[in-house]
Amino acid sequence: MNRQQLIKQIQTKETFLCIGLDTDIRKLPEHLKNEENAVFKFNQAIIDATAPYCVSYKPNLAFYESMGLKGMESFEKTIDYLKQNHPDHFIIADAKRGDIGNTSMMYARTFFEEYNLDALTVAPYMGEDSVKPFLEYKGKWVILLALTSNKGSHDFQFIEDTQGEKLFEKVLRTSQQWGNEENMMYVVGATQGSMFTNVRRLAPRSFLLVPGIGAQGGSLQEVCRYGMTDDCGLLVNSSRGIIYASSGKDFAKAAAIKAQEVQQDMAKELEKRI
Amino acid sequence: MNRQQLIKQIQTKETFLCIGLDTDIRKLPEHLKNEENAVFKFNQAIIDATAPYCVSYKPNLAFYESMGLKGMESFEKTIDYLKQNHPDHFIIADAKRGDIGNTSMMYARTFFEEYNLDALTVAPYMGEDSVKPFLEYKGKWVILLALTSNKGSHDFQFIEDTQGEKLFEKVLRTSQQWGNEENMMYVVGATQGSMFTNVRRLAPRSFLLVPGIGAQGGSLQEVCRYGMTDDCGLLVNSSRGIIYASSGKDFAKAAAIKAQEVQQDMAKELEKRI
Repeated sequence: MNRQQLIKQIQTKETFLCIGLDTDIRKLPEHLKNEENAVFKFNQAIIDATAPYCVSYKPNLAFYESMGLKGMESFEKTIDYLKQNHPDHFIIADAKRGDIGNTSMMYARTFFEEYNLDALTVAPYMGEDSVKPFLEYKGKWVILLALTSNKGSHDFQFIEDTQGEKLFEKVLRTSQQWGNEENMMYVVGATQGSMFTNVRRLAPRSFLLVPGIGAQGGSLQEVCRYGMTDDCGLLVNSSRGIIYASSGKDFAKAAAIKAQEVQQDMAKELEKRI
Repeated sequence: MNRQQLIKQIQTKETFLCIGLDTDIRKLPEHLKNEENAVFKFNQAIIDATAPYCVSYKPNLAFYESMGLKGMESFEKTIDYLKQNHPDHFIIADAKRGDIGNTSMMYARTFFEEYNLDALTVAPYMGEDSVKPFLEYKGKWVILLALTSNKGSHDFQFIEDTQGEKLFEKVLRTSQQWGNEENMMYVVGATQGSMFTNVRRLAPRSFLLVPGIGAQGGSLQEVCRYGMTDDCGLLVNSSRGIIYASSGKDFAKAAAIKAQEVQQDMAKELEKRI
């Protein structure tokens, strides 16, 4: 999916919500736990219930890999189901990969050819040749970690060089020589609301994938105030707050209600600015 | 495998070679390519032929993931085979993971419980809470990226802060508050030979996993000169130079010859210093 198509989806549906499919078998509703393909069935129900309220789904690979081959089968089934039934949704593999050139090339093949996903989260530590192989696929996206929403983000991402530039700023600035607004987005955590001003100075039009709303404490209004652009420029992620809204038989309906609430808040933000 | 057991293996076998199982189906010998389980059969032959000359194997996850479920099956079979037939080898999953706490916990479960591997490579960008969940497993290891061997390492890893400390140095220094020599190693690329002096100043006794010998141009002698400690403290990796030594029917034998050459060089280095 290219930039224009994504913007069109956001405008049409009045939402820039990305739902994180961090599906943990231990957290499934009791009535599903012992079913065959429980993880896939859970995802399927969540997707069907929430699809009108979001533009994107983001399965987190760790949750599937931790269940071994069975987990990866659930991942593949989920992707297939999305592709077949909700082809207008932007699918992000949250994998945070990044390795030397020939290895990144293998990962690009996996996620962009084998699974035909739209985007992949990538870690910047290893620099240009670890990121570039992902940028060679037309209509596919790298979502580079810039400023993450966890506590540990303070350990290295805020290191200032002799010119006063922080590491995450350097990541934003340097990486724009590798890609552009049509193939590169950035992860910028919502817990650092005011930092968005800084981020927009360096990446004025890039889409930002924003975790940290909800369970991690970030505010949607603050993110929009400092981070929204003329054509939105935001994908705001929520995972646990939506998919585990209820642990009962009504889990899908409860997820839909939560997703709709977020969508309505997002519609207001879009109205204000676009 | 704990530190003492690893050191004992190194001393007994007079080698600190780690063989990277970066098995690419497109590079397999012709006679294997169309066989069922070709990747596993290749690994099995390479392992049996080279086991006397190395102390460690390092499958690179990207190569297996890029083949989808079938690839992950080959990975699992390879691990099972190693565990059954070569239980004294230290098995590293080269996965370069690193995510927020609850996700890193899932990865730890996958690699340390599900697969029962000895070590996992981890990217430091997200800081303490992305690394710590891996350190809670007794006898298991985090191998944290410090200074990598690729060209892109210069993009961020050498950034100097206002005190003159480089990012990779800060990673080395800070991370030693999270773990210790019994559960944390570092990736330090061999292409930066003289940097080992610097690394040893900050991590005097930690084991270093050193890629970049062979295909990437690093020198074993230089690495040992600047990086070896009293109890070795090095695992030097070679992948392509060994596993693709021949593309004919003699591939396993050719790999063994290459591995033995490296082992003999290593024995000399060990003799000099220990």
